[in-house]
Amino acid sequence: MGQIIDGVGLAQKVKQEVKLRVQEHRQRGKPVYLVAVMVGGSPAGEIFAQRQADTCAAVGIDYQLLKLGRESAHEEVQQTISKLNHDPTVSGIMLHLPLPGHLNATELQYHIDPEKDVEGVNPANIGHVVYGKTLIAPFTAQACIELIKATGVELRGAEVTVVGASQIVGRPIALLLTEQMATVTICHIATRDLKLHTRRADIVVAAAGVPGLITAQHVKSGAVVIDVGINRVKAADGTNKTVGDVDFDSVAPLASFITPVPGGVGPMTVAMLLQNSLRCADLLQAKTIGSGADRSLE
Amino acid sequence: MGQIIDGVGLAQKVKQEVKLRVQEHRQRGKPVYLVAVMVGGSPAGEIFAQRQADTCAAVGIDYQLLKLGRESAHEEVQQTISKLNHDPTVSGIMLHLPLPGHLNATELQYHIDPEKDVEGVNPANIGHVVYGKTLIAPFTAQACIELIKATGVELRGAEVTVVGASQIVGRPIALLLTEQMATVTICHIATRDLKLHTRRADIVVAAAGVPGLITAQHVKSGAVVIDVGINRVKAADGTNKTVGDVDFDSVAPLASFITPVPGGVGPMTVAMLLQNSLRCADLLQAKTIGSGADRSLE
Repeated sequence: MGQIIDGVGLAQKVKQEVKLRVQEHRQRGKPVYLVAVMVGGSPAGEIFAQRQADTCAAVGIDYQLLKLGRESAHEEVQQTISKLNHDPTVSGIMLHLPLPGHLNATELQYHIDPEKDVEGVNPANIGHVVYGKTLIAPFTAQACIELIKATGVELRGAEVTVVGASQIVGRPIALLLTEQMATVTICHIATRDLKLHTRRADIVVAAAGVPGLITAQHVKSGAVVIDVGINRVKAADGTNKTVGDVDFDSVAPLASFITPVPGGVGPMTVAMLLQNSLRCADLLQAKTIGSGADRSLE
Repeated sequence: MGQIIDGVGLAQKVKQEVKLRVQEHRQRGKPVYLVAVMVGGSPAGEIFAQRQADTCAAVGIDYQLLKLGRESAHEEVQQTISKLNHDPTVSGIMLHLPLPGHLNATELQYHIDPEKDVEGVNPANIGHVVYGKTLIAPFTAQACIELIKATGVELRGAEVTVVGASQIVGRPIALLLTEQMATVTICHIATRDLKLHTRRADIVVAAAGVPGLITAQHVKSGAVVIDVGINRVKAADGTNKTVGDVDFDSVAPLASFITPVPGGVGPMTVAMLLQNSLRCADLLQAKTIGSGADRSLE
């Protein structure tokens, strides 16, 4: 029976470490300060923002939600981001999605100072990953790497199959894994023979958004299985429940390690966001000191 | 016997098409104008720049080499790039590498306006590829895509193995192929069993920089073989010659299509740079018109 990779427990550990380092920043008079920009509100968005505020407060990160009107012009949102970029008290900036239809998300994300881009969404930051100069990694992808590392399984030389080639999850995961010298195969909806690739893999990362896609026929014995899927489905009794992309009951007995859903990648994703916020504060500190040192992670 | 993919012939076709479109830009009073920035000179660098100037001239692209002193501070180079970014007559900007040791290439490349980044080196541009919003593709990777497309072989669903995970070639190629819905495996020096992956592949892209790495034992019958390698080796008679990563004589009889070295990827790379220059001029025109349209290629 595969060992459960305890996402909740690992996330707690990360949060504790982040909390200590965040306190150090506060003690030197430069608290870690995250500003989230929301254009137009929504009840769901407000709830999400409140949760973020609580998560930040729990580790000592100051958080502010900056709300702009739904009709705000592109130029106005861009100027708001610019001000935050230049504000020496702001460590990190987030941009709530979705944006109202008249705004171009990619252009606005590109406008966030890469060193304050806590979510790692600025295309330049994913470009930095490709170029081996990771500054801020996209947090879901980073969560997967940390969960794999927690198993102690060697990434260098490992055969890894990523199922799902989405822009914000699958592809960044594939890039981070390649940077760790794994041999990565990226599968998706056009892949002719998914099982061929997943059965070969030492590590399967399922990020397709298809409930129960990965079954016992898809994995070899002893594989590490990372389930990124978050799918809301109706249980037999009519209630809603959250399941991953992996058929847990049939796959867990085969795997060496497996992440549950919920309680696996999800909590770790939140922890990575907090870790990124700390990373941004460290970068800001280094910049202020004027260190000319190479600030990339590698 | 595999069909030779004629890189020289295809490049010529691309250049002709570029030449016609470049002329259109000149006729409307906005000639395509490329500026290359070189910090500190070298005889090899000057020769290379002259060749670039000739290549541009051959298709009607204006070209200027802007030389800065070897001791130029980062701020000065950045300001030079800024001025070019804001100069409405400049379509494209290139930055000669290598730069003197005190300068940070990645930061300067990031400073080039992504829409004027003819080489596609700004990390934001490779980020745009990952995010499915390709603006300017890195030209060597784009050359490979064009050569594969020239064979008529379907990329969607194709099994493709990229040998070599370099930042400027292998990884961008893998990303562009994934965007085309191929199933991509990225191999490199830490891959345990290279043959396992290359023998499975419908298309092998060799970009490892190792002469003769890919032999008849590495490819399945009927594979498409794209050789990106440019290796200078000593021939049996003591003279220098250029060979690729593929053992051409043993592989060509097996392949359906194969690029020779020289005469394959190399000439196509140059053509892609010219095509990118045109692309930049088109983007500048669209911007001037003030079109709010989505300017991504996809």
